[in-house]
Amino acid sequence: MKAINETVKHQLSHRTIREFTDEKIPEDIFNTLMEVARRTATSTGMQASSIIRVTDPEIKKEIAKVCNQEYVGRAPELLIFIVDQYRNWNIAREKDCNEESIRDMDRFFSAFTDACITAQNVVNAAESFGLGAVYLGSILNDPKKICEILELPELTFPVVGLGIGYPNQSPQLKPRMDMKFRVFENKYTPMTNYLEQLKDYDAEMRTYYDLRDANRRVDSFTNQVVTRLKNVIPERQKILNAIRDKGFDLKVYDK
Amino acid sequence: MKAINETVKHQLSHRTIREFTDEKIPEDIFNTLMEVARRTATSTGMQASSIIRVTDPEIKKEIAKVCNQEYVGRAPELLIFIVDQYRNWNIAREKDCNEESIRDMDRFFSAFTDACITAQNVVNAAESFGLGAVYLGSILNDPKKICEILELPELTFPVVGLGIGYPNQSPQLKPRMDMKFRVFENKYTPMTNYLEQLKDYDAEMRTYYDLRDANRRVDSFTNQVVTRLKNVIPERQKILNAIRDKGFDLKVYDK
Repeated sequence: MKAINETVKHQLSHRTIREFTDEKIPEDIFNTLMEVARRTATSTGMQASSIIRVTDPEIKKEIAKVCNQEYVGRAPELLIFIVDQYRNWNIAREKDCNEESIRDMDRFFSAFTDACITAQNVVNAAESFGLGAVYLGSILNDPKKICEILELPELTFPVVGLGIGYPNQSPQLKPRMDMKFRVFENKYTPMTNYLEQLKDYDAEMRTYYDLRDANRRVDSFTNQVVTRLKNVIPERQKILNAIRDKGFDLKVYDK
Repeated sequence: MKAINETVKHQLSHRTIREFTDEKIPEDIFNTLMEVARRTATSTGMQASSIIRVTDPEIKKEIAKVCNQEYVGRAPELLIFIVDQYRNWNIAREKDCNEESIRDMDRFFSAFTDACITAQNVVNAAESFGLGAVYLGSILNDPKKICEILELPELTFPVVGLGIGYPNQSPQLKPRMDMKFRVFENKYTPMTNYLEQLKDYDAEMRTYYDLRDANRRVDSFTNQVVTRLKNVIPERQKILNAIRDKGFDLKVYDK
């Protein structure tokens, strides 16, 4: 038995939307999305994440190139969520506080978490208005380049992008593995023989059509795992370099 | 002007809830929360995050100790969202694929992002049912200890905790800075004189009462920034050590 309501109904029918109509998002709706972002939970109240709203078609295209997905350039709204310790660093400095702890990776991760949960809050709001969204993890195919394009100062970092607009496609609901594989009680419980356990899911996945390649069914899930592991993007692997370049301290402590 | 609907109404009135009634979350609602987690967007479809549902009161207490917040032990539901590359690593190995790329930090960050957005999706669903939630970033006060408590295997990592239940308190809406400080168009725009710009927000913050210390107003935001920077938690700073201990590769690449 499942409990249901209006909010959850939208959440349960979430699909990635990559193609949008030309209709602009009304300003009052966009304002609400930003107000939802503002009200999102934030670690110790620090509000150490920000949003770059990309409106310039040329900049959109540059980002699309990093993402290697041309549809990114056509998204009616393109938002990039970022770690932002720059603002608080400058607030502290104006108060003559120069604590280098702002560079610590635990601060980075707190801000990174803030940026992610803000993005999802915006997605839920957008979908509740009948809008569709696509997450763009692919902005991190070249984090250094994204930092340059958006002129990100020190102590900031790109986390995830979001394309939003009115849907111009109706994808199938994508098969997902049963939560019995993903929810554990009290402690992590490794399985033996994942392939055997995931056989039904693999079969279900092969019935799914990806609209990016509309005439071909997708591969089984477990095959996709292998394909993904073999697909290494060199600039993407260098994420720690890019984080360090923004002034964060990658120090690993001795015991 | 702001657009509004049922979903957004809940989002705009989000408050952290730390005290809950004894009422258990009905099973059908809990099932829906897990179904919402299942339907959350996931990077390249990999579903590389999992949830530990903590039901054992002793384990709750151990986690509360790490969080240094005793109320954590009393949350009716306690969920820990984790990076989980262990499952896919084992799937790959069963297919005779031993690609070490699973240890790369870009894979870690993709899974970390998945875990965060799943948590927020669950928060939105929970709040839509009249439940309240508290994010527990404080589980990372000692990531190594949390890994031990939850018996996390290699290639997994704790991201964020969530306490959920029926609210037994009605906190004020916490003042947040205006989004003009946090949304930029096309590129990051540094400000000069943050303190001057944030004066009104600082004044508004001083009208807020934190229920954890109910008789005292909180400090201004800009003072809180300084206080936070001076509050360094040694085991928390060592997050990269703990990530490395779980088998992820902290390599920083030469140009």
